[in-house]
Amino acid sequence: MSTGRVEAFSDGVMAIIITIMAFGVTPPQGADLDALGEVLPSLLVFALSFALIGIYWNNHHHLLGAAGRITPAVMWANLHLLFWLSLVPIVTAWVGDYYSESLPAAGYGLVSLAAAGAYWLLVRAIIGADGPDSDIARAIGSDVKGNLSVVAYVAAVGLAFVSPYISYAILVAVALMWIIPDRRLHRAS
Amino acid sequence: MSTGRVEAFSDGVMAIIITIMAFGVTPPQGADLDALGEVLPSLLVFALSFALIGIYWNNHHHLLGAAGRITPAVMWANLHLLFWLSLVPIVTAWVGDYYSESLPAAGYGLVSLAAAGAYWLLVRAIIGADGPDSDIARAIGSDVKGNLSVVAYVAAVGLAFVSPYISYAILVAVALMWIIPDRRLHRAS
Amino acid sequence: MSTGRVEAFSDGVMAIIITIMAFGVTPPQGADLDALGEVLPSLLVFALSFALIGIYWNNHHHLLGAAGRITPAVMWANLHLLFWLSLVPIVTAWVGDYYSESLPAAGYGLVSLAAAGAYWLLVRAIIGADGPDSDIARAIGSDVKGNLSVVAYVAAVGLAFVSPYISYAILVAVALMWIIPDRRLHRAS
Amino acid sequence: MSTGRVEAFSDGVMAIIITIMAFGVTPPQGADLDALGEVLPSLLVFALSFALIGIYWNNHHHLLGAAGRITPAVMWANLHLLFWLSLVPIVTAWVGDYYSESLPAAGYGLVSLAAAGAYWLLVRAIIGADGPDSDIARAIGSDVKGNLSVVAYVAAVGLAFVSPYISYAILVAVALMWIIPDRRLHRAS
Repeated sequence: MSTGRVEAFSDGVMAIIITIMAFGVTPPQGADLDALGEVLPSLLVFALSFALIGIYWNNHHHLLGAAGRITPAVMWANLHLLFWLSLVPIVTAWVGDYYSESLPAAGYGLVSLAAAGAYWLLVRAIIGADGPDSDIARAIGSDVKGNLSVVAYVAAVGLAFVSPYISYAILVAVALMWIIPDRRLHRAS
Repeated sequence: MSTGRVEAFSDGVMAIIITIMAFGVTPPQGADLDALGEVLPSLLVFALSFALIGIYWNNHHHLLGAAGRITPAVMWANLHLLFWLSLVPIVTAWVGDYYSESLPAAGYGLVSLAAAGAYWLLVRAIIGADGPDSDIARAIGSDVKGNLSVVAYVAAVGLAFVSPYISYAILVAVALMWIIPDRRLHRAS
Repeated sequence: MSTGRVEAFSDGVMAIIITIMAFGVTPPQGADLDALGEVLPSLLVFALSFALIGIYWNNHHHLLGAAGRITPAVMWANLHLLFWLSLVPIVTAWVGDYYSESLPAAGYGLVSLAAAGAYWLLVRAIIGADGPDSDIARAIGSDVKGNLSVVAYVAAVGLAFVSPYISYAILVAVALMWIIPDRRLHRAS
Repeated sequence: MSTGRVEAFSDGVMAIIITIMAFGVTPPQGADLDALGEVLPSLLVFALSFALIGIYWNNHHHLLGAAGRITPAVMWANLHLLFWLSLVPIVTAWVGDYYSESLPAAGYGLVSLAAAGAYWLLVRAIIGADGPDSDIARAIGSDVKGNLSVVAYVAAVGLAFVSPYISYAILVAVALMWIIPDRRLHRAS
């Protein structure tokens, strides 16, 4: 199986997730500013999720561009990542509805954490397929940003029970850290 | 018509099904563990359906990769398969809502059975187009796994009326059996 | 602009329409046969609409395969066709809800008629771009099947007010007539 | 990263937006003309939004066809445009529900304005990547139509508070102005 087909399928899934998430934002139930204000939290969490999926799309593209071959392990690791990303619209809608509560914020953090873990597994599967001397193995090296994200997501899950707004601040910070595409993979691809 | 276009269209449809199925999972109607617990069955059946479509995507890709040419019969057999797969989100939502009942479990089994039958028809249509001496005809040989799935799905439909949980166990077992991509086709493609 | 991009975009839109239409079928609101019976009309009209879009996808593919170049007129004629096709899910859901009434059946017929008219316009736009001596102009010739469909759809709209079931019979008959891909274009492409 | 992949992803997102927007049009809640009449405003605003996304798809295609290379700035400018376009279904549904009110019309105008601004930023990012002597920089020149659209959208936002129908007239006029693909980019691509 070529990397091209896996990329095309993954791109399709991510394009649908990013677009369809907007439907978790119920249109304002009224035509005044109050009704608009009520959907504001939904819009903000939609923007965060849009950035999250956009970041995965971008990094996923660089990752698969640097990958040499697709083994069954790589293919299932990729589907596993897409599974967790496909839960993002659900937690996005949940947080949009109950943004001031701890559990939805922790749920959002947990899905982010699982997606980050799935991405990590995908990187290992690709390195496993291409060998420790491959471009990708060297390019990844010590994955500081990836490890930092995992730690931050764990913190976002735990601190949601202190205040969900701490979680949101952490999630936004991680997104900002990733918006610049990973220089190391960029060089390798 | 090239196999490429049929693959691209099928991939598009399966990418949409896999993604959009998540919308059958209503976000928790509350911010506590009870509300989360109520959506757990929906999440589990979503995970099963995600695996089911993922398996079809993977095997479909290997199948079309081994196919030589697309006749009208192949094209309609393919659309027929996509028709049954497009019913998966509906039975997924139905089982998510009434997971402890027999009829939804039987309905899920029936759609799985129809999709397996449609896949079987697609294989025959491709062999019919390429001839009995083609790579694909030899690669398929005696389709043990395919036949076993059909028997298992028939059992899942019938035993749902004893207990839906027996059906779910069978459906999960079939999914696990298929997660390893078919070695025979793999070799042929 | 290449025909490839227009085909890819159109395929994407049709793949989404065909998949997402299944969401107009509300999952049964109960776990017994009565609840299942209530969604049966929705399932049948979904199957009809699935065939309708499948036919357009197939013929559209043959048509664009025979087209030489994409002018702005061709591009807008194509978007115009996609516009009417994107209304198919709405009339599908409407008929699914009120299948025994005249107006929804007439509405379904009207959208079918408009899509057929838009397809006719697209054919003219392509012939206009490629010239009267082009392969496509010769392949179309006197478009008996296309003209017959338009007449049948007009009848389906009108006769819906006698009985919606006459409309459904006509719509099914037209679909069956088109399921065999158009031999003339097939030869030209 | 090639322009091809960014185009394919953007096309996918726009194909989904254009299709899925139809779901903001609730099927008529009844089978008589009154019920049909109630969804008419939703259908009209859907048609306007369909044209809007169709115009962006067309111009975006010409723009990326003329672009030389994709820098991170171009990629994020493109995602930023897609973000605003993905809000179009929400404001479409809002206006469909409350078409006679000022705030939804202003909201629609604001999203249109933000998308136009995002498109302008994308053009700048592409010129920044390709240099001031590139084909695209010359092709754009003084962007009369783009500037005119921004002015018109600002007016549509403000005048919505006089009457929403003035906004709709302006939005329709801007759409008509853009339906003819941009001759300058057409020449350069």
